[in-house]
Amino acid sequence: MRKIEYFGIVGGDKRQLETALSIQKDGYNVNICGFENANFKIKDLKQDTLNNVISKSEGIILPLPVTRNGTSLNAPFSNSEILLNNEFFELLKDKKVFCGMAEILYKSDLPYNKNNIYDYFNREEFTVENAVPTAEGAIEIAMREYSGTINGSKCLVTGYGRIGKILAKFLTGLGADVTVSARKKEDEAWIKLQGYHFANTNNLPEIQFDIIFNTIPSTIFNARTLAKTAANAVLIDLASAPYGVDYNAAKRLGINAIKAPSLPGKVAPKTAGEIIKNTIYNIIEEEL
Amino acid sequence: MRKIEYFGIVGGDKRQLETALSIQKDGYNVNICGFENANFKIKDLKQDTLNNVISKSEGIILPLPVTRNGTSLNAPFSNSEILLNNEFFELLKDKKVFCGMAEILYKSDLPYNKNNIYDYFNREEFTVENAVPTAEGAIEIAMREYSGTINGSKCLVTGYGRIGKILAKFLTGLGADVTVSARKKEDEAWIKLQGYHFANTNNLPEIQFDIIFNTIPSTIFNARTLAKTAANAVLIDLASAPYGVDYNAAKRLGINAIKAPSLPGKVAPKTAGEIIKNTIYNIIEEEL
Amino acid sequence: MRKIEYFGIVGGDKRQLETALSIQKDGYNVNICGFENANFKIKDLKQDTLNNVISKSEGIILPLPVTRNGTSLNAPFSNSEILLNNEFFELLKDKKVFCGMAEILYKSDLPYNKNNIYDYFNREEFTVENAVPTAEGAIEIAMREYSGTINGSKCLVTGYGRIGKILAKFLTGLGADVTVSARKKEDEAWIKLQGYHFANTNNLPEIQFDIIFNTIPSTIFNARTLAKTAANAVLIDLASAPYGVDYNAAKRLGINAIKAPSLPGKVAPKTAGEIIKNTIYNIIEEEL
Amino acid sequence: MRKIEYFGIVGGDKRQLETALSIQKDGYNVNICGFENANFKIKDLKQDTLNNVISKSEGIILPLPVTRNGTSLNAPFSNSEILLNNEFFELLKDKKVFCGMAEILYKSDLPYNKNNIYDYFNREEFTVENAVPTAEGAIEIAMREYSGTINGSKCLVTGYGRIGKILAKFLTGLGADVTVSARKKEDEAWIKLQGYHFANTNNLPEIQFDIIFNTIPSTIFNARTLAKTAANAVLIDLASAPYGVDYNAAKRLGINAIKAPSLPGKVAPKTAGEIIKNTIYNIIEEEL
Repeated sequence: MRKIEYFGIVGGDKRQLETALSIQKDGYNVNICGFENANFKIKDLKQDTLNNVISKSEGIILPLPVTRNGTSLNAPFSNSEILLNNEFFELLKDKKVFCGMAEILYKSDLPYNKNNIYDYFNREEFTVENAVPTAEGAIEIAMREYSGTINGSKCLVTGYGRIGKILAKFLTGLGADVTVSARKKEDEAWIKLQGYHFANTNNLPEIQFDIIFNTIPSTIFNARTLAKTAANAVLIDLASAPYGVDYNAAKRLGINAIKAPSLPGKVAPKTAGEIIKNTIYNIIEEEL
Repeated sequence: MRKIEYFGIVGGDKRQLETALSIQKDGYNVNICGFENANFKIKDLKQDTLNNVISKSEGIILPLPVTRNGTSLNAPFSNSEILLNNEFFELLKDKKVFCGMAEILYKSDLPYNKNNIYDYFNREEFTVENAVPTAEGAIEIAMREYSGTINGSKCLVTGYGRIGKILAKFLTGLGADVTVSARKKEDEAWIKLQGYHFANTNNLPEIQFDIIFNTIPSTIFNARTLAKTAANAVLIDLASAPYGVDYNAAKRLGINAIKAPSLPGKVAPKTAGEIIKNTIYNIIEEEL
Repeated sequence: MRKIEYFGIVGGDKRQLETALSIQKDGYNVNICGFENANFKIKDLKQDTLNNVISKSEGIILPLPVTRNGTSLNAPFSNSEILLNNEFFELLKDKKVFCGMAEILYKSDLPYNKNNIYDYFNREEFTVENAVPTAEGAIEIAMREYSGTINGSKCLVTGYGRIGKILAKFLTGLGADVTVSARKKEDEAWIKLQGYHFANTNNLPEIQFDIIFNTIPSTIFNARTLAKTAANAVLIDLASAPYGVDYNAAKRLGINAIKAPSLPGKVAPKTAGEIIKNTIYNIIEEEL
Repeated sequence: MRKIEYFGIVGGDKRQLETALSIQKDGYNVNICGFENANFKIKDLKQDTLNNVISKSEGIILPLPVTRNGTSLNAPFSNSEILLNNEFFELLKDKKVFCGMAEILYKSDLPYNKNNIYDYFNREEFTVENAVPTAEGAIEIAMREYSGTINGSKCLVTGYGRIGKILAKFLTGLGADVTVSARKKEDEAWIKLQGYHFANTNNLPEIQFDIIFNTIPSTIFNARTLAKTAANAVLIDLASAPYGVDYNAAKRLGINAIKAPSLPGKVAPKTAGEIIKNTIYNIIEEEL
């Protein structure tokens, strides 16, 4: 594992600070920059200039997503923009670079060195582990918004991918009555033997669910489906764009529909940071 | 069950409104008073004057606790004080009265008719069921305050009474690593066979727990125990007075200690209201 | 704990041999007698005469039950009867004696010294822990006798004492659809919040259960109840005398009713022996 | 679903009889042949000659596997051999034929009509659902062979495919301390977040497990691995050929290694039969 001893963390939100702290705790050298305005745990970390941080480090950790606009680094706590320009990539030339959603980077015509860039967001274990804070964040929202307890409530989870699987398990652990929807016979078999009720995503039942969690990025909850949904249901949309709910229709029908993207960084930055760290460690072990 | 057809709900918080709605939904006649300032679901219920509500009803449901000061009804949404005076008890004389914590009432020298007063708070099933919203409320606080996920966190639950049992079960259902403390060998046996780690309450381990839930109404977390507690731990005190934490010491040590009493009414008024209703139904079935 | 260094195990079945092995493994001196005909793990233990074993030992462990007939020790593997006579009790006079179900002993007029006799069977933690091998043994029988899987089967557990609680938990862990019967409102509350279906023991539902586990020592399954039971149900009676089934009626109706007493020693002697050991250690710690 | 009204079940073991009974219970016409020597539930089914059964039926259900030797039908309860000859396939020509492991059939040069033959064994949901009786059967063996309880025992499950997943879940449901081995980082992530301990299949830990379940069809437990295994461990091999254990080495080392193939039909014929039925229904719904 000791292929890299010096890490530089450049830009990002609370998650990246937690990544930095967690790597430092493991005994590595860590320097950070782009967090001038963070008021969070920053005093335990060494801050330096961009140039210094990069030149001192063998491995550079960039944010998730690495950029939102394609031209500057995603660095909400930085007091100045960090441009994704020639100069920046020149600095990174001989470094191992770890970032999330590198494909946005690659859309530009910057002189990045793909051989040195590792996307932690694309790793299977990252996605699996990240489903945990997503599921917990969703449950926290449900607890806040729903006027009863999760225990004893009727919950619907649409989709049986990573988030659906973990959410169904956690809800059952809290004593909810859980229905999971999917389309494939194989998923139906798994859903049933886990003890959940099964529903066909193409034909959701007219049961009056108390809480609905959508994980499918497609408008499952259009005007027609929403019309069959209980008016006092809480509907939490965990799907990424194009999302799963017709929000105008929901508003019209008085249904409490909540768009909840990017939960891990918001609800559990510490865990989210550790997941980034673990994935980077795995990359170093397997790919470097 | 149909021994009472007309219910009057007088005073109380959101829980009592939910009790009223839930009884009404079961097909009984319900009238309420003392909720003039509530802006919550009130339009689905019939409001009337104190005199009318009581004279129209066979069963009168008073709040939990029925009074806080011993002299007036606990009616936070009322626009005038409802005094616990002769006149009030004269009105109730021939009614079946259901209330919570009647013993505060009995401390005064009011002309109450004990034969007609039933305390739903004293029933075993009320206490058991109420432990569920308490446990969920505690978990909601933990999710909000702890920067990681419950899944994978090290949790300590002190005390293996009703709340301790349910909390340990829910935390395990979310994938936490749960230690439960108790004093009796019998409890130790139960705790271990449920798959929890056991700790002796008299000698808590120096493990660095992420989240601690106290359910014991005695200062378990005094300065000495707190000194052994991780500085970044979240400590949630669910015990009633005299509480379980030396809050001054916690503050001095920078430990995030949170006093969280009376959770059911706050986090899950609907469930809390249904528990009151179910207990009243049981009283009617068994005692009337 | 080191109040006793030398243990003598006299009489008993496989459980007592496992108790002996487990104590020996903890570093104590162990001598046994009354196991001449055991062909099981006996070679790892030191056998000696009754006189020698007792005189060499500070603590003497007698079987569970200590006697079946009141006159001789319960020693199925012994090649001669060990009489509970004056001579025997003279030998034990200054020893700490641990046995199970001492009350049968006390019915005789033998010169036992009650101050030196400790009944491990009476300890709460013994009974709790013993419910585990009982529940597992019951599930093993159900797996063998029922032609389907426990997963997905409809199970009824009558009684919500120690065995009922553990059995319901294990069956749920295997994915059964579990109904638990009880009589008290408090038990009803617990049963429901654990996610089981509730039934009133006084009025069992006419559901066609696949497997029924009785834990109540009273003829719940009399001719009338059995007439409502599915003919192909498996009915496992875990109650002690007077048992829970009218076996003649069951035979007449062709219902597969199985009397299954004393499971721990039969299905899991190792665990049963460790439970005896742990209980004796607790007695030494607390009472000696 | 009512595309086929008349079913003929020809050959097979108890599972096929249960399939026949279950289809008949759903209201279809069912005739069977090849069960002359079965003494099991046979009286509730209509037996007829091979010719009559096939000519009366639209759908013919053949066994799993359809043949063991390639020349005659797998019909252990038949009093004469049913040859897989021209004549037999001529009879089936215009029928919908459902069988298991059709590929053995296709190795011969018989005049089968592949367009009419549907292999239920190849369907994903069949394999998933069948993992349940396999897992339960394995647990039943473990309960019988291991002298302690599953609760509290240290279990290793090698492989995180269908059987590994279900087995780990059930063992946890019984309170075992479960380690699961796999090779992929993604599986590691899933294993850990389910609360199991993780081990790398390529490098199994030297922990003294009480019970080991192998699901990998490759000699994981060779002489070298077995030498690190506790002498009193129970090792249950659920893998199909070439199996997972060097049985000679196990014998030499005195390890209790048990080859346990084809559990569903043995331990839960009713469930196994229902799984065949459900899969055939799915085929009819989707493919006919």
